[in-house]
Amino acid sequence: MAVVSWEQTVEDSINTIYLLFSAYLVFVMQLGFAMLCAGSVRAKNAMNIMLTNVVDAVVGSLSFYLFGFAFAFGGSAGSNSNPFIGSNYFALSNIPDAAYDYSFFLFQWAFAIAVAGITSGSIAERTQFGAYLVFSFFLSGFVYPVVVHWLWSTHGWLSPSNSTRLLFGSGAIDFAGSGVVHLVGGIAGLWGSLIEGPRVGRFNAFGQTVPMRGHNATLVVLGTFLLWFGWFGFNPGSFGKIAVAYPSTTNQGNWTGIGRTAVVTTLSGSTAGLVTLFGRRLWLGHWNALDVCNGVLGGFVAITSGCSVVEPWAGVVCGFFAAWVLIGLNILALKLQFDDPLEAAQLHGGCGAWGLIFTGLFAKEEFVIQAYDSGASGVVRSHGVLMGGGWGLFGAQVVELLAIVGWVSVTMGPLFFVLHKLGILRISVDEEIAGLDISSHGGYAYAQTEGNSGRFYADYIRMQNEQS
Amino acid sequence: MAVVSWEQTVEDSINTIYLLFSAYLVFVMQLGFAMLCAGSVRAKNAMNIMLTNVVDAVVGSLSFYLFGFAFAFGGSAGSNSNPFIGSNYFALSNIPDAAYDYSFFLFQWAFAIAVAGITSGSIAERTQFGAYLVFSFFLSGFVYPVVVHWLWSTHGWLSPSNSTRLLFGSGAIDFAGSGVVHLVGGIAGLWGSLIEGPRVGRFNAFGQTVPMRGHNATLVVLGTFLLWFGWFGFNPGSFGKIAVAYPSTTNQGNWTGIGRTAVVTTLSGSTAGLVTLFGRRLWLGHWNALDVCNGVLGGFVAITSGCSVVEPWAGVVCGFFAAWVLIGLNILALKLQFDDPLEAAQLHGGCGAWGLIFTGLFAKEEFVIQAYDSGASGVVRSHGVLMGGGWGLFGAQVVELLAIVGWVSVTMGPLFFVLHKLGILRISVDEEIAGLDISSHGGYAYAQTEGNSGRFYADYIRMQNEQS
Amino acid sequence: MAVVSWEQTVEDSINTIYLLFSAYLVFVMQLGFAMLCAGSVRAKNAMNIMLTNVVDAVVGSLSFYLFGFAFAFGGSAGSNSNPFIGSNYFALSNIPDAAYDYSFFLFQWAFAIAVAGITSGSIAERTQFGAYLVFSFFLSGFVYPVVVHWLWSTHGWLSPSNSTRLLFGSGAIDFAGSGVVHLVGGIAGLWGSLIEGPRVGRFNAFGQTVPMRGHNATLVVLGTFLLWFGWFGFNPGSFGKIAVAYPSTTNQGNWTGIGRTAVVTTLSGSTAGLVTLFGRRLWLGHWNALDVCNGVLGGFVAITSGCSVVEPWAGVVCGFFAAWVLIGLNILALKLQFDDPLEAAQLHGGCGAWGLIFTGLFAKEEFVIQAYDSGASGVVRSHGVLMGGGWGLFGAQVVELLAIVGWVSVTMGPLFFVLHKLGILRISVDEEIAGLDISSHGGYAYAQTEGNSGRFYADYIRMQNEQS
Repeated sequence: MAVVSWEQTVEDSINTIYLLFSAYLVFVMQLGFAMLCAGSVRAKNAMNIMLTNVVDAVVGSLSFYLFGFAFAFGGSAGSNSNPFIGSNYFALSNIPDAAYDYSFFLFQWAFAIAVAGITSGSIAERTQFGAYLVFSFFLSGFVYPVVVHWLWSTHGWLSPSNSTRLLFGSGAIDFAGSGVVHLVGGIAGLWGSLIEGPRVGRFNAFGQTVPMRGHNATLVVLGTFLLWFGWFGFNPGSFGKIAVAYPSTTNQGNWTGIGRTAVVTTLSGSTAGLVTLFGRRLWLGHWNALDVCNGVLGGFVAITSGCSVVEPWAGVVCGFFAAWVLIGLNILALKLQFDDPLEAAQLHGGCGAWGLIFTGLFAKEEFVIQAYDSGASGVVRSHGVLMGGGWGLFGAQVVELLAIVGWVSVTMGPLFFVLHKLGILRISVDEEIAGLDISSHGGYAYAQTEGNSGRFYADYIRMQNEQS
Repeated sequence: MAVVSWEQTVEDSINTIYLLFSAYLVFVMQLGFAMLCAGSVRAKNAMNIMLTNVVDAVVGSLSFYLFGFAFAFGGSAGSNSNPFIGSNYFALSNIPDAAYDYSFFLFQWAFAIAVAGITSGSIAERTQFGAYLVFSFFLSGFVYPVVVHWLWSTHGWLSPSNSTRLLFGSGAIDFAGSGVVHLVGGIAGLWGSLIEGPRVGRFNAFGQTVPMRGHNATLVVLGTFLLWFGWFGFNPGSFGKIAVAYPSTTNQGNWTGIGRTAVVTTLSGSTAGLVTLFGRRLWLGHWNALDVCNGVLGGFVAITSGCSVVEPWAGVVCGFFAAWVLIGLNILALKLQFDDPLEAAQLHGGCGAWGLIFTGLFAKEEFVIQAYDSGASGVVRSHGVLMGGGWGLFGAQVVELLAIVGWVSVTMGPLFFVLHKLGILRISVDEEIAGLDISSHGGYAYAQTEGNSGRFYADYIRMQNEQS
Repeated sequence: MAVVSWEQTVEDSINTIYLLFSAYLVFVMQLGFAMLCAGSVRAKNAMNIMLTNVVDAVVGSLSFYLFGFAFAFGGSAGSNSNPFIGSNYFALSNIPDAAYDYSFFLFQWAFAIAVAGITSGSIAERTQFGAYLVFSFFLSGFVYPVVVHWLWSTHGWLSPSNSTRLLFGSGAIDFAGSGVVHLVGGIAGLWGSLIEGPRVGRFNAFGQTVPMRGHNATLVVLGTFLLWFGWFGFNPGSFGKIAVAYPSTTNQGNWTGIGRTAVVTTLSGSTAGLVTLFGRRLWLGHWNALDVCNGVLGGFVAITSGCSVVEPWAGVVCGFFAAWVLIGLNILALKLQFDDPLEAAQLHGGCGAWGLIFTGLFAKEEFVIQAYDSGASGVVRSHGVLMGGGWGLFGAQVVELLAIVGWVSVTMGPLFFVLHKLGILRISVDEEIAGLDISSHGGYAYAQTEGNSGRFYADYIRMQNEQS
């Protein structure tokens, strides 16, 4: 191995700091999801939903290490490359120890564990924990990595960085994963929630909605802000590298694009939040904090696909429509008696889908080249329809949307169905009324005063076990 | 456009990482404020105060993007420059897309949204949400950016970086904004709180204080630590750049100053916390956790002005006196029957003012040159009175203090007064006793058990709307 | 002073960003501890335990500034060097202001304040606050810095970087402090908890355990995730520098090792969490979220020593055994009627000890050279026994383990004993039953509804004091 140059070491160091700290921020989203979900369910199921978030992280670490990363990025150069699934680097084998970019692995790991967290919201408050373990393992270990391979590896059939052939001469642009992450999680949640059916008592005999609000709005706000914080890693971090070897007239390096991505992301989420604030005020007659939180998140989900390739003003446009997509789908869901405790299918699925379309409309050529052809000059790439970029990119975006909906449906749909038929998907009505925490997790999450809680039953069992 | 050099790209990348991640930390302060405020009010108003913090962020994003940033930094070179207010870059127009430092915009945005959060604490638990929207928009979109222009742009009349003329041959040093951010927010809160008057029941018929403590100390501690975390972005981040092109004998680059700023900040907050711990112990007879939290924050507010230009030992001095300023003003406030639920006017106003004076006393010449004349040598600058630096800096600090108090008073005072006269500032006594959450936001923040909360009323309205 | 080169400025800037932001993450662990501890105690003691965490930070800032840093790193070059304790840089005197690496001080400060936080968990819910101040000051100001000097200064007798003599030709490898931080905190907690005895009512007359669960599982999960987030600063940050001046064939700079350290850490914590999930499921019959949280932390504590010098697969091995160490010690503690409310002695002490042994078994030569002999080539160093590295390192690890247990026992044991004999260590039974918050801190942490809490007594006293 040759001595590397000082210049190379400096670049590697800069890029490692940038990507590692971005990965840490993305990891914070797992905490954000945990708090958001906990606050949005009833107190009797808080322990259960938090455990699913912790388990997503620990199960995801091992499944992504053992094979998820290999499925996603394990392509080999040359004729062995597979546009559908990777097959190298299982358990990080065959990587060059002394000079490997482990920060890339960590960044991708933080993404992988987020997906199951989205879906867990859709099926909250009524799912057996054993079933949760099965679907979480399958989703984050297989279904999700395959989609990553399609879009983000240099071998994927939808990838805009595919080294041999670009779909429609363009490839789909899903920069940080409106489709890869959010649509995948949302569609999985849609199937899970459909197959499980609504929570007991969510709709009365007349088909009317019965309110079933979460137990702690403070946790919802805490979770929302933590997710916002984490999104600064999610979107700007997806550039992967900030310092590049060969700056050119068209490319100053990624630094300006990274800053712009953070600004665009902020504007989209903020606009969506503001539209939701006033939209829901007109609708409900009061200023609803929790709806604003979900509105902000919807704006972030939507901009995640195009954040690096649109102007700041387009971020405002993206957020504006994202808010109405979410509001509309939530009304539709109630009409159809679809019950998703976290609105995850509507939010991550609906706004994620809108994000893919948005990118096909508003991507700017200069930024597409900046993000996907660093260093080259004189490149022509398809870009947004409304920006005069033709239909190549738009077509690829639609194909990505359909492909993800199809792939997740044919994998996760049958999985949930089989679990349902085996009777191991949903808890019993009695358990649901009592709450998952007392039935499956040994006690409630809260004990404000001593001696007043049902957890004593579980504690005595524990005590006797430990003493025996 | 010329090809930029590799060296330039490396510098830009380093500075972007540094400033972006600092901006992310400053953003966390918004979450910190939300938690601190929520914990410090009664449970019946928790939803309201959290919504104001979310709204500060989303409204602030759009107002700062559309015109706040232009007022603050939109100066043009040459004869058009205006020492009072900027007028360029509205909606980020006219900026060079391919090589713009968007991280600077994001960093400044995170500062802008913090100001209204400070003021919202002073007027908590009794303000109409519509009035909140008006004052928040006006404060963060106009009043605050003008002060930023005075101090932090190269055209401002108080700026120590003014390229044509330094006030008293010095300009005022308000490095990260004891005055620009905290004093502005605190004085606005003072006027709002004065005009609204105390909360119902805060003082009894005999003029005695009736305890009205917050509902959740855990949230207060959570918020305090998050603010501490965020302050590491606020103060060290205000250097703006860490790598500089031309290191000299007097300037090793900003890296050492940045680390020192973090240490000085830590020492000031810690000292103030410790003094408060023992000072309040003597006064009250018990060890008060919440007072210590506020003491720590007071120490941070005070050091924010001078953090980059004083020795570590001076940070200890700064925090020591900040604690007594806060303790003294809190006693005074009770005597005057002034009711600020978060002590925001005392803390951000009082300690912010002390911070400006402190800098005029203790700024060290070597560090002033390091922070404000990077790269030059043989420069002479006015510095702290007690460090032998003459009266130029001290005079400028006093002028800044007076100018901010005056400017905020003549803008925010009348605004609150007009809202008050129109009857749209304060909620009714009935609403105040019931709480803002149930009267304006559709329900309480908490529901530990099902079916026990007043939110049902709001939910049924919502349900009927959605079903109709 | 000479003009420094552009290259030096770039390196310094990169390393400062890396170390400062790592320090900020380590600081977040203080918040994580506060939330974890608060959630794990009963509501009546929540204020007390949070105050101890705030006080650790503010007291630690001053004690570490005044003398802790000097004891730890104040070695001077040449014959004055002392292998046991440092004696320079008191109050940061004698350091070169214009070019000092203050980020190193801040990073070490963040470590120092963590130690007392560990111990406070062991003695929670029954310790006088005055005694807390004494032991916290003594532990973080003297006992801990001395161990740091042994292991992490270039003069320490156990240090693997000792410039004159390596113990057993190796020195002990305790990269981020399984021993230096966690074992020290855990052993101190062991003595404190032993001398104080169990909480009132923890064991009944028949020697059976009475459940005494914490009041808020949400806070426990919040704290655990924040600690996980902070550990990304703790372990990868302990490289200190990321960009190095002279890359060689064996050393690409630290960047790859830093990324790998983050991955190894993640795998160990995740594996331990997963093993705990299933292990406790078999034992208790339910899926226990809080046990999984502690399992994850146990995996992190154990890997902290060897994180930089082992392969990813070894991280899995480390976490697997850490889980069983924790499970086993918890069972043993109940059998011996040892009551540690946070399991801190078992977790930080037990898993910390396992971590030291683990490193002696699995350290890989290539990585030991990478982490401890940057830039050199042809170096031979002792490494893990199971990796064919001989017994030198293993022996040093055992010596470190014994030395720390001995040192902490002979210092903290007598301290707790004297406090106990003076009657100022433990609160009275009445106070313990009433709770520390009402007896020592002026009121409870929570007030969900107005007028229902015992804090009124304290408030009236406060009110009368303030009005008089």
